[in-house]
Amino acid sequence: MKGLWLENQQLRFRSDLPLPESAIDESLVRVIRAGICNTDLELIRGYYPYCGILGHEFVGIVEKGPDHLRGQRVVGEINATCGQCRYCLNAQSRHCENRTVLGIVNRNGAFADYLTLPTDNLHLVPDGMITDIAVFTEPVAAALEIQEQIHIDANDRVLVVGDGKLGLLVAQALALTGCDILAIGRHSEKLDILRNLGINTGFPDSIRERSFDVAVECTGNPEGFDLARRALRPRGTLILKSTYAGNLNINASALVVDEITLIGSRCGPFDRAIDVLANGQINVEQLIQGRYCLEQSIDAFNHARKRGTLKILFEN
Amino acid sequence: MKGLWLENQQLRFRSDLPLPESAIDESLVRVIRAGICNTDLELIRGYYPYCGILGHEFVGIVEKGPDHLRGQRVVGEINATCGQCRYCLNAQSRHCENRTVLGIVNRNGAFADYLTLPTDNLHLVPDGMITDIAVFTEPVAAALEIQEQIHIDANDRVLVVGDGKLGLLVAQALALTGCDILAIGRHSEKLDILRNLGINTGFPDSIRERSFDVAVECTGNPEGFDLARRALRPRGTLILKSTYAGNLNINASALVVDEITLIGSRCGPFDRAIDVLANGQINVEQLIQGRYCLEQSIDAFNHARKRGTLKILFEN
Repeated sequence: MKGLWLENQQLRFRSDLPLPESAIDESLVRVIRAGICNTDLELIRGYYPYCGILGHEFVGIVEKGPDHLRGQRVVGEINATCGQCRYCLNAQSRHCENRTVLGIVNRNGAFADYLTLPTDNLHLVPDGMITDIAVFTEPVAAALEIQEQIHIDANDRVLVVGDGKLGLLVAQALALTGCDILAIGRHSEKLDILRNLGINTGFPDSIRERSFDVAVECTGNPEGFDLARRALRPRGTLILKSTYAGNLNINASALVVDEITLIGSRCGPFDRAIDVLANGQINVEQLIQGRYCLEQSIDAFNHARKRGTLKILFEN
Repeated sequence: MKGLWLENQQLRFRSDLPLPESAIDESLVRVIRAGICNTDLELIRGYYPYCGILGHEFVGIVEKGPDHLRGQRVVGEINATCGQCRYCLNAQSRHCENRTVLGIVNRNGAFADYLTLPTDNLHLVPDGMITDIAVFTEPVAAALEIQEQIHIDANDRVLVVGDGKLGLLVAQALALTGCDILAIGRHSEKLDILRNLGINTGFPDSIRERSFDVAVECTGNPEGFDLARRALRPRGTLILKSTYAGNLNINASALVVDEITLIGSRCGPFDRAIDVLANGQINVEQLIQGRYCLEQSIDAFNHARKRGTLKILFEN
């Protein structure tokens, strides 16, 4: 089968890959749509030494699996877990200590004709939902994870730093809480997407320091982190949503003196993401900026890597 | 009067300092004992551009002030607040945005014959408590602050990183919660202080990674931070207790992937600290390793700066 193979930080289109075999508790899924995420770009830059097929945001059709799923469109949670470690047994299976992660850790990913995942990881795409929307389930779930970790409501003043694809989803997800939200970035055409949805936006120099209860860092760069930290009031909460290739240089004393809480935030609830997308509560279609087939992978990644690009999709 | 003056990172003994004048809501306090804290050493290294008399841990006798305090021994909270900003009005006055801080920010400190503080900041030292113990009120309060910020109980496995004076106080404070605690450091003679109190101790290479619910970083160096982070289970909590001169280089992706919560922690509750010290629940006398008069300030600071030194006191 065809697929995009990452090895030693080199990405290569291959048409000689074997069809994956699904284990007893797994399903075989034919991928029909997949999205490029910043984590994919970070993996190519060496954030984690992964070797295999890249990609973890997808919609597919179940080819082999239980009757109720066969022939259906599905999305899939990316952490394949052991079911037996202390995290799995304590309802924190996304932190399973023996997990593989689709296209990230020891498990071939979604930029291919086929993938396998544990059947328990799969979620049906509702009939009325178009595939272009369903492919955003994984990043929307990640955006919704923040609300699983801390309580945010109408009394909170919240800053979202970054107008990339993650920032645009996080801002929309947080706006659902009714909080007083400001999203900042450097690209007015991207901020327009939020502004047209009634979300306040601004440029970085417009924020008042020490005035936000919560700040969410979605840029993945040190300047974004520093801006988020300075925007927070004492005892405020800084959410780290991005992964970083390399270390981050932080002013730790400022965190101590202001007693800031910093929370790392990763994968989120698929059920909730599907609901929110099905109800049209988060607008994702305007984020799509390119469509490629797997054979055009170099073009696709060059496009995705270009500063300011939002979502690039693979279509099969 | 005599005092230790910091200016451009140079510490100088002076005997030409004017006696401070207490404002209407302040008391004049004659200092009888004061302790050197790591923050003092960091200030000399340039952590914050402070110019004035250094020192913030003290016991003194009220010379001018209200009747019920005059002639009494007191300790004092170090943040002098405005009483009117949003933090003061929301019971978070230690984060007052207009505050001065004794010996740290715009307010002459305790390494002198006299100091002034708002009378509301002063706490009576109980009659039975010796001055050598009372002088630890401020750092013990800082150690107790952790329990004001997060709930810790017998179900929690807690790591304290660092066997300096802060680490030894934090470990004892946390042990009061009944948690399963391990304190690690590099100096067996210092760890012995904890071991003799029934607290488990070990060397850094003895910890099992990803096994603690809470880790408290008390070393102020990047290695200590990294060790604390690696010791935590996913979704664990890392408490930052130390201030740092300069930035800290952290693996931010690890915080995101493991969804770690990092909490900065600073000054704490004086009332509780006095109670704990009065009840003998925290042993501080073994931490005292040197006594100097103000005229011997250079010797005192050279001693305090020496690797592995615990508490150095000034006596007046």
